[in-house]
Amino acid sequence: MPWRYEEEGDNSWGCASWFEYLVVVVLSTILLVGALVLTLFWVIYYRGGFAWSENPEIQFNLHPVLMVGGFITLSGFSILFYRLCRCLKHIYVKLAHTFFHACTIPCVVIGFLAVFDSHNLANPPIPNFYTLHSWIGLVTMGLFVLQFVFGFFTFLVCLCCENGTYSCRAAMVPIHASFGLVTFMLACATCVTGLTQKAIWKLGSAYSQWTEEGIIINAIGATIIALGVVISFAVRRSNAPATAKVYVTERL
Amino acid sequence: MPWRYEEEGDNSWGCASWFEYLVVVVLSTILLVGALVLTLFWVIYYRGGFAWSENPEIQFNLHPVLMVGGFITLSGFSILFYRLCRCLKHIYVKLAHTFFHACTIPCVVIGFLAVFDSHNLANPPIPNFYTLHSWIGLVTMGLFVLQFVFGFFTFLVCLCCENGTYSCRAAMVPIHASFGLVTFMLACATCVTGLTQKAIWKLGSAYSQWTEEGIIINAIGATIIALGVVISFAVRRSNAPATAKVYVTERL
Repeated sequence: MPWRYEEEGDNSWGCASWFEYLVVVVLSTILLVGALVLTLFWVIYYRGGFAWSENPEIQFNLHPVLMVGGFITLSGFSILFYRLCRCLKHIYVKLAHTFFHACTIPCVVIGFLAVFDSHNLANPPIPNFYTLHSWIGLVTMGLFVLQFVFGFFTFLVCLCCENGTYSCRAAMVPIHASFGLVTFMLACATCVTGLTQKAIWKLGSAYSQWTEEGIIINAIGATIIALGVVISFAVRRSNAPATAKVYVTERL
Repeated sequence: MPWRYEEEGDNSWGCASWFEYLVVVVLSTILLVGALVLTLFWVIYYRGGFAWSENPEIQFNLHPVLMVGGFITLSGFSILFYRLCRCLKHIYVKLAHTFFHACTIPCVVIGFLAVFDSHNLANPPIPNFYTLHSWIGLVTMGLFVLQFVFGFFTFLVCLCCENGTYSCRAAMVPIHASFGLVTFMLACATCVTGLTQKAIWKLGSAYSQWTEEGIIINAIGATIIALGVVISFAVRRSNAPATAKVYVTERL
C-alpha cells in the first residue's frame, strides 16, 4: 500500500466534516426508509396487499416489498451503520453489521419463494429466470451469500485467534468492502429492472398516461438510484469514522 | 486528508500488480467492445438495421447503439484510459480523456433525437419521459454535461494559470472522479432498464420462451453490468498509475 496515516484524532473533525456527516446520515435514513415505505404503499394501495400461495398473483407482492426491505433498506442500513457509527465499541458495530445482514436473509428467502410460487402456481405457469432482472438478481443473491459466509468466518470466527489471523483479516477488509458495495449496486440495478418490467406488465398503455401508480413506481426507482449514489459516496469518504486512526487496530 | 504518500516509484510494481493490471485492461477492453458489438448485432440482425425520420420505428434503433456506444464504450474507455495509461505524458492523457468524452456528445445528441423522433413521428405519437428509464437517462445526461463543462474549464482552461489554480484543481480531482463514476453507473442503470422495457415491448410473450433475441438482449445487459463492476474496481485500485507519486504534480 502506498498510503499511510498522518496524525488525525477522532476529535479533529471541523465544522464542514460534521455537517457533511450529518447530511449523509439524515439523507440516507430518509431514502432507506422512503424506499420501503413507498414500496409498501404501492403494493397495499394499488396491488391488493399480501397473500400466500392461495392467491399466487397477490403472493407476488411479497417479492418487491421483501427484496427492497432486505437488499436495500436492511443491507444499506447495515453498510452505513458499520461505516458511520461513532459511538459504540467496534466489536458491537461488527455484531450489529452482521445482525442486520442476517435479518436480510429471511427477507430474501421469503421474497424469492414468493416470486417462485407466483410463477409456478399461476395458470398457466410462468417460466422462471428468463428476464435480465432475474439474471442480475441471481448474481446479487449469490454474491450476498458469499459475502455473508466469507465475512462471518473471516471477521468474527477468526477473532478466536486474534493475533494469528490479524494480517489475513487486514488484507481481507478492502475485498469485503468492495464486494459489499458491488452487491449493493447490483441490488439497485436488479430493483430498477424489476420495477420497469412490473410497470410495463401491470400498467400497459396506462403507464404512458402518467397515472399515479406509474409515477409511484418511478419514484421508488428514483429513490433506489439516489440511495446507490449516497451510499457509494458515504462509504468512500476518507473522513468517515471507520478510517479514523483510533479504530485501525480493532476494526479488522 | 488523513493520508499521504510513502515512497513508491513507478517501477516498484510486483508481478501480481502487473498481472492484475493486464487482466483489468484486457477484460475491460473485451467488455467495452463486446457491449457495442452485441448491440449492433441485435439491432441489425433482429430489429431491421438503421433509418432516419422516414421510418420512425427503425429510426429508434439508433438510440440503443449510440447510447451504448457513447455512454458505455466511449465514456468507459475514456475513464479507463485516464486511469490506466502508463506510457504517455500526463497532458496528452488528459487531452485524450477529453477527446473521447467529446466524441460521446454527438452520439448522445443523435441517440436522443432518434428516440424523440421515433416517439413524436409515430402514429399515434408515443408520449415522452414517462418511464423510469427516461428519468434515469435524463439525470445521466445532465450529470454528463455538467461533468464535461466542469472538467474542461477546471482541468484544461485553468492550466493557462497553472500555479494560481493548483490548489483549486487539486481539490476538484476527487469530486470530478467521484461524479464521473456516478455518471457511468447511472448510464449502466439506464441501459439495463431500457433493455428490459424494449425486450418486453418487442418480444412480448416470446421473451419467456428463451428466444435467441431475448437471450442476446439479456447478454447485452449482463455485459454492461459486468463493465460497471470492472470499471468501478479499476478506478478505485490504489496501485493504478494515476495514484503513483511521479504523476502527482502534473496530473491535476
